[in-house]
Amino acid sequence: MTEFLSENFLLTTDTARKLYFDYAAELPIIDFHCHIDPREIYEDKRFTDLADAWLTGDHYKWRLMRICGVDERFITGDAPNYEKIQRFAEILPRCVGNPVYHWTHLELRRYFDCDLPLNADTAAEIWQHCNACMPSVREILEKSRVETIITTDTPDSDLSWHRKLAEDAPLKTRVLPGMRFDGQPSGDTASRVAFFADNGCRSADIGTDDFDAIRRIAPKIAAQNWVMELHLGALRNVNTKIFRAVGANTGFDAMGGGVDVRGLAKLLDDLNTAGALPKTLIFPLNPNDNAAVNALAGAFPNVYQGAAWWFNDSIDGMTSQLRAFANVGVLANFTGMLTDSRSFLSYTRHEYFRRLLCDWLGGFVERGEYPADFGALRTVVRDMCHDNAARFFGVEAGV
Amino acid sequence: MTEFLSENFLLTTDTARKLYFDYAAELPIIDFHCHIDPREIYEDKRFTDLADAWLTGDHYKWRLMRICGVDERFITGDAPNYEKIQRFAEILPRCVGNPVYHWTHLELRRYFDCDLPLNADTAAEIWQHCNACMPSVREILEKSRVETIITTDTPDSDLSWHRKLAEDAPLKTRVLPGMRFDGQPSGDTASRVAFFADNGCRSADIGTDDFDAIRRIAPKIAAQNWVMELHLGALRNVNTKIFRAVGANTGFDAMGGGVDVRGLAKLLDDLNTAGALPKTLIFPLNPNDNAAVNALAGAFPNVYQGAAWWFNDSIDGMTSQLRAFANVGVLANFTGMLTDSRSFLSYTRHEYFRRLLCDWLGGFVERGEYPADFGALRTVVRDMCHDNAARFFGVEAGV
Amino acid sequence: MTEFLSENFLLTTDTARKLYFDYAAELPIIDFHCHIDPREIYEDKRFTDLADAWLTGDHYKWRLMRICGVDERFITGDAPNYEKIQRFAEILPRCVGNPVYHWTHLELRRYFDCDLPLNADTAAEIWQHCNACMPSVREILEKSRVETIITTDTPDSDLSWHRKLAEDAPLKTRVLPGMRFDGQPSGDTASRVAFFADNGCRSADIGTDDFDAIRRIAPKIAAQNWVMELHLGALRNVNTKIFRAVGANTGFDAMGGGVDVRGLAKLLDDLNTAGALPKTLIFPLNPNDNAAVNALAGAFPNVYQGAAWWFNDSIDGMTSQLRAFANVGVLANFTGMLTDSRSFLSYTRHEYFRRLLCDWLGGFVERGEYPADFGALRTVVRDMCHDNAARFFGVEAGV
Repeated sequence: MTEFLSENFLLTTDTARKLYFDYAAELPIIDFHCHIDPREIYEDKRFTDLADAWLTGDHYKWRLMRICGVDERFITGDAPNYEKIQRFAEILPRCVGNPVYHWTHLELRRYFDCDLPLNADTAAEIWQHCNACMPSVREILEKSRVETIITTDTPDSDLSWHRKLAEDAPLKTRVLPGMRFDGQPSGDTASRVAFFADNGCRSADIGTDDFDAIRRIAPKIAAQNWVMELHLGALRNVNTKIFRAVGANTGFDAMGGGVDVRGLAKLLDDLNTAGALPKTLIFPLNPNDNAAVNALAGAFPNVYQGAAWWFNDSIDGMTSQLRAFANVGVLANFTGMLTDSRSFLSYTRHEYFRRLLCDWLGGFVERGEYPADFGALRTVVRDMCHDNAARFFGVEAGV
Repeated sequence: MTEFLSENFLLTTDTARKLYFDYAAELPIIDFHCHIDPREIYEDKRFTDLADAWLTGDHYKWRLMRICGVDERFITGDAPNYEKIQRFAEILPRCVGNPVYHWTHLELRRYFDCDLPLNADTAAEIWQHCNACMPSVREILEKSRVETIITTDTPDSDLSWHRKLAEDAPLKTRVLPGMRFDGQPSGDTASRVAFFADNGCRSADIGTDDFDAIRRIAPKIAAQNWVMELHLGALRNVNTKIFRAVGANTGFDAMGGGVDVRGLAKLLDDLNTAGALPKTLIFPLNPNDNAAVNALAGAFPNVYQGAAWWFNDSIDGMTSQLRAFANVGVLANFTGMLTDSRSFLSYTRHEYFRRLLCDWLGGFVERGEYPADFGALRTVVRDMCHDNAARFFGVEAGV
Repeated sequence: MTEFLSENFLLTTDTARKLYFDYAAELPIIDFHCHIDPREIYEDKRFTDLADAWLTGDHYKWRLMRICGVDERFITGDAPNYEKIQRFAEILPRCVGNPVYHWTHLELRRYFDCDLPLNADTAAEIWQHCNACMPSVREILEKSRVETIITTDTPDSDLSWHRKLAEDAPLKTRVLPGMRFDGQPSGDTASRVAFFADNGCRSADIGTDDFDAIRRIAPKIAAQNWVMELHLGALRNVNTKIFRAVGANTGFDAMGGGVDVRGLAKLLDDLNTAGALPKTLIFPLNPNDNAAVNALAGAFPNVYQGAAWWFNDSIDGMTSQLRAFANVGVLANFTGMLTDSRSFLSYTRHEYFRRLLCDWLGGFVERGEYPADFGALRTVVRDMCHDNAARFFGVEAGV
């Protein structure tokens, strides 16, 4: 039996351990899609307590609490912060196999040096321990070796915090804006794109399944040589009752039955024929689409499936996405993990991914399905964990 | 090499064996959805021979025989019972990996103390051996520790056998009716629901994909605090020629391409907004729907995916359902296995599930993905194998 | 760590090795669906060099090169042959987990006795080595023990090369035509079917998803007792720009979202009711359809899912197809692997499949999920690798 979350967590073979510790572990992080607030980086926010750092805005955790019948007062409501942690601790041991179980404990270890499993009995001790050593945002970024962050910003954003950050010499992390489209472009879009480009933007995040809207936005993105990120297939706010009570992005979204593959194919083809197809990452929310999206992406230049998204950020989900990517395309072209998170504690998701990736890659070598060519493997690991993203988003060191 | 169907069948690690033998094996069975005849319980039927107990009404076995080209006379026809068993024995070794292969041999071992593999050479010996020690229905129930059975009954049923059973003091198994809806409710439905409720009914089984019908039935179910079981996505009687010859439920059904997730989301949301959403279990027949159904269920209170259904009652199918449940939701909330069977010999399906579950759970601990916290694990196992179903259906001991 | 592509490649247990080496390895090959040119068999073509034998027409390899940004000149263009090999060698190590990685090295070993891993450093040596020992088409067929080949021929083909081959006494491989339908049958179809039948045709390959066309063609196929192969769900030539430059079948096809299961069910049912349902193999391109296609096939006589197709010819894809086949149907009825290839070097795909199959089957025995009944297992292996196809297509030895 392997100890819980040991040094070799997820690394089951010698080859896996070599790949991870020699090649992957120390690579800086490019977190090219997230929902954090640039102001909190600029101001180097220090969290008031563990609940503030950990539960605020984290709809993954909220969702699990709600599924377990925890009252909304302890989730998004006005219960005291410690009671919220206590309630979360009570339900967490029920979440066997859920990635939140692993994230939670990776975060406790990496940012708080705390290796207790969180449950009803340990909640008080963990609360006190963590509150006493709460790191600031910049401490977290440094500890996590975060090289680049791309945030998600509405087209009308004045990017004022990004401009302050750009002139903040001591900050080692490069923080860039990312432009977010949720619907049809407006008459003003072209000038806003130019404004974002002037402020270092290199990507557009599309959060709509309206292919007609995408068709109109894409040429502007292509003209800037930005990356277009298509997040497809979400069913948002499916529970109207909770939505009315606590608003959007609080943990009651779902996924549709699957992408309209034929429509997506036509969209990409038309843009490509018109010379207006941007570099593109496709994130289908329903994992059933992995094979079809990879098959389709392979027919167009610089189009790839993105990392396993949202409900798929589990060991199974990430493995399934990697398998589809490898079977149907060229694995080493994968642009790597991202947090997609509202929390600064989420950088351990990169570690989670890298461990899983190295274990899975190592398996090929261990089983004789790939040669023990560690030069080639080093390139594959570095590309998938850092270098591909740096090139694709144009954020190589020194650029 | 592990011996065929040994004591440690499916239990590949020490942790798995501990979870199974210490926590799961002895738990009573709540079989909350099946198609057995309550009269046969009341009358304590003793089967005439192995074919009567084993092949009658078992469309899983019929289907495999038909796929192998066995003549209908030996399946649903008038061939002598021994010849039917002989034909089944001949084709069974071809069914590597099919759950019927395992069910068959678990049933031979648990109810007949027979550990021969069934094939053309052993059929005669097994036939004689089993016929000589044929158990009665109540003997099977007792041996299997069946605590509660919920049958499937048409709305017009007089529930006479259930009423007799309710007054049958020596019977240790509680037998309750379950109301089955295949189409639109009628004017009479409200009074029938009340009648069923008076007779101990706690659940409604919905066998239609017509969301409009479900929308009309659900409030009645919610009002009774019953569990609504949605069995979605079946294509029934796809072979008209056989249907005309031998009728429905004989093994030529199939599954559709997938649930209308958007429509289902709207249905649940509307019912929830109206305060008319019952406790609900969703059973999608196409396993592609596991992820989407779990994501959707997690947005509503007391809505869960049910156990892997029908074509998914295999090791792969059950594992896939458990993975989706764990990744997207809270594993320990799973309400557990059921037989969905027309045969009294099917209770070994609970054993099959419990072994698989304990092996899979044990894997998390063995790989260091969950702590060796056997208190928490015991709760998870008990909840998933018994306690959740007891609470969800209101059939706790003493209630 | 197992050596790369060792003798025991993919065979991870003793049982797997026994099944493969004792039962599967030496069986002749029935390649019942491919796209090779019968003329090249008749003329016993000897390839000019490795690029001619290996890259010409192989859109699997082209696709990977294009995904890696290799210029079209080195793919379908007029670059010198060695430079094409060099470019392919450069990108191949990036294709971890892709079946082309394995096929490539199996082909180097089996046909050229070359066990170097192909990469930028070894390309020159491999080029020289292979060119010096280039086999002819008939040498490849003999070495691969190819017993039967069924080609893919348009309805207007005069089958002249097939007729020459039929009279070519020294050729040990039986080469038969297969009739290919891509759209609606024409007025001439009946006479063309008769002509093909006269020339030994035993199968029709349907490459359209137009169920109405299939409905009109199928009775003609059934009347000849041919096998109908339904290849469903391809999205062809999705990139118009490349299509205009280099034509069809060059590596930019994709897959749709899934088969119309309900429509397919109705098609099979109507044909069956009319007594006009041929022996049928269904090849869905989207792997999501595995479960539904197997469930549906099981409701009709002599209808099965075919082998994992195209994008699914990977270890994961073949395993997933086998699992669905076993879980939902009768595994030993599977009609086995095919190359679907334009290259004479692709027969190692049968070896790839057989190794994987034996490993997977062996796993059942090793884990105690199937008895160590090697008589039964031998039958299963032989049926799945050779005998079922021989019977289904009517190409048994001596027939």
